[in-house]
Amino acid sequence: VSVDELVALVAGARAGQARAVGRLISLVEQGSPAVSELTRLLAPYTGHAHVVGVTGPPGVGKSTCTSALIGELRRGKRRVGVLAIDPSSPFSGGALLGDRIRMAEHATDDGVFVRSMASRGQLGGMAAAAPQALRVLDAAGCDVILIETVGVGQSEIDVMRLADSTVLLLAPGMGDSVQAAKAGILEIADVFVVNKADRPDAGELGRQLRGLQAMQSAADDWQPPIVQTVATEPSGIDALVESLAEHRAWLQRTGEGKLRRLARARHEIEALAADTVRRRLMAAPGLTALAADVAGGTLDAYTAVDRLLAQLRD
Amino acid sequence: VSVDELVALVAGARAGQARAVGRLISLVEQGSPAVSELTRLLAPYTGHAHVVGVTGPPGVGKSTCTSALIGELRRGKRRVGVLAIDPSSPFSGGALLGDRIRMAEHATDDGVFVRSMASRGQLGGMAAAAPQALRVLDAAGCDVILIETVGVGQSEIDVMRLADSTVLLLAPGMGDSVQAAKAGILEIADVFVVNKADRPDAGELGRQLRGLQAMQSAADDWQPPIVQTVATEPSGIDALVESLAEHRAWLQRTGEGKLRRLARARHEIEALAADTVRRRLMAAPGLTALAADVAGGTLDAYTAVDRLLAQLRD
Repeated sequence: VSVDELVALVAGARAGQARAVGRLISLVEQGSPAVSELTRLLAPYTGHAHVVGVTGPPGVGKSTCTSALIGELRRGKRRVGVLAIDPSSPFSGGALLGDRIRMAEHATDDGVFVRSMASRGQLGGMAAAAPQALRVLDAAGCDVILIETVGVGQSEIDVMRLADSTVLLLAPGMGDSVQAAKAGILEIADVFVVNKADRPDAGELGRQLRGLQAMQSAADDWQPPIVQTVATEPSGIDALVESLAEHRAWLQRTGEGKLRRLARARHEIEALAADTVRRRLMAAPGLTALAADVAGGTLDAYTAVDRLLAQLRD
Repeated sequence: VSVDELVALVAGARAGQARAVGRLISLVEQGSPAVSELTRLLAPYTGHAHVVGVTGPPGVGKSTCTSALIGELRRGKRRVGVLAIDPSSPFSGGALLGDRIRMAEHATDDGVFVRSMASRGQLGGMAAAAPQALRVLDAAGCDVILIETVGVGQSEIDVMRLADSTVLLLAPGMGDSVQAAKAGILEIADVFVVNKADRPDAGELGRQLRGLQAMQSAADDWQPPIVQTVATEPSGIDALVESLAEHRAWLQRTGEGKLRRLARARHEIEALAADTVRRRLMAAPGLTALAADVAGGTLDAYTAVDRLLAQLRD
């Protein structure tokens, strides 16, 4: 696309045209060479949206909850963007398709942009594309952007680091889900949600979460609240929206929000730079000969890397 | 560790000492600075083992099958290494723990090395460590090294690329598992296994797989065989071992094995180099200032990357 077209698309997105928004995110997703220019054009219009990550193990009701959240935010006249990340598991049971269908009830609402992005291939690709997609939605005037993932791995945690506030959904009767969610994800949760709170064993899950709260360091003055919801009714979603607003106010009041955005920018630059270097490496003329020596056992991989990087520097 | 200690450990591993093997893999996993030297020391003793990847959706019986495979290979007096990769899903239900327990029946057999590796953190970490761990097991005299993953994502496909031969396990009665396994994993399977073949609906799964075989390009002269097993009995495992031996013979006869090892070395060098560069980037003095400008909206991320890479080059 030409710079003129880009300027026109950005103007369209700013005017709330869903097609312009969709087109821009597609450019970002394809890794178009225009993305660099696009980022420059969007920069003045970003920084408004509250980016909220919604995560949790499969089956807790993430998309029902996301859909209910959209409804509640729309009742408050907020513009909502949804970025649904599919980590493209080779064994995903197709749950995401069903999710997208459930979200379709908001498809005709022009205050809502819903966009799915696949994270196929290199992690670097997603790490580069997702922040740009958020900027497009932000510049398009979204007050809140929800990031939803299907919930299966490290790449999901990486995506959640893009959020200002992260909601961790759990539900009773799913085995010991607090235990299961331990590695890495509890640490980044700002709001805990006990979904399916009408189930008899919801009390036990609540108790486990309060135990977790108590164990947290007193130095950190934000204690993740525990919100009880039944997303299917929906009930409790208003309290969730309120908790998110409180968390955002806390982020702004304490300067923590600024620190998070700084860390995020740092991480984005690192990921983009690593991706750029990786492309150069893959195209390096000396790579094939070095690989042949490593495959033949006459050269070790570490020495090969030293030589390759020396070649690139010349 | 000193070079002397390293030499002693390599000698111990070559003599089949499980403790030396374990110690060396720990060094590799921790990303010890000695890994480069270790790779040099191991290089002359590698290239013997047949590396076999075992993958498939959760619940098909991967670890029962791996355990049965170990048993069958041991009856043939082959030395066996097992590298079990835990992709460290934040929501893994702890299935891997159970798997490890099931494999414990081989724990007292000194012809079997079983080792779990976590793929926490950066993909680069795993991509760097797994090939080195394979070299340790190879140098320790393993005839066959089985790589098993818990089966959930892109990182798993990356790990499977380390194998000479890849076994895809499917089982009847798990929904449309052929459909579910489509994205990326069917393409890398060299042998299909229909496990739980005593179930009444096993015939339908077999038909689907034969349909897949028929659709494959005739240009590729290896047609993945379909092996029927009941890993719990076990039955059919001898046929699986035979199919794997045939695949290895094909790899050697056609030169395809050499091509795969070349591609693998290339991929390893790329991943190691990208990891090295990423570490340098994270330590670059200019990064914080650039991140502040990007977070503040006065600089776009792409320009920041250009500047950062220019700084590193100086």
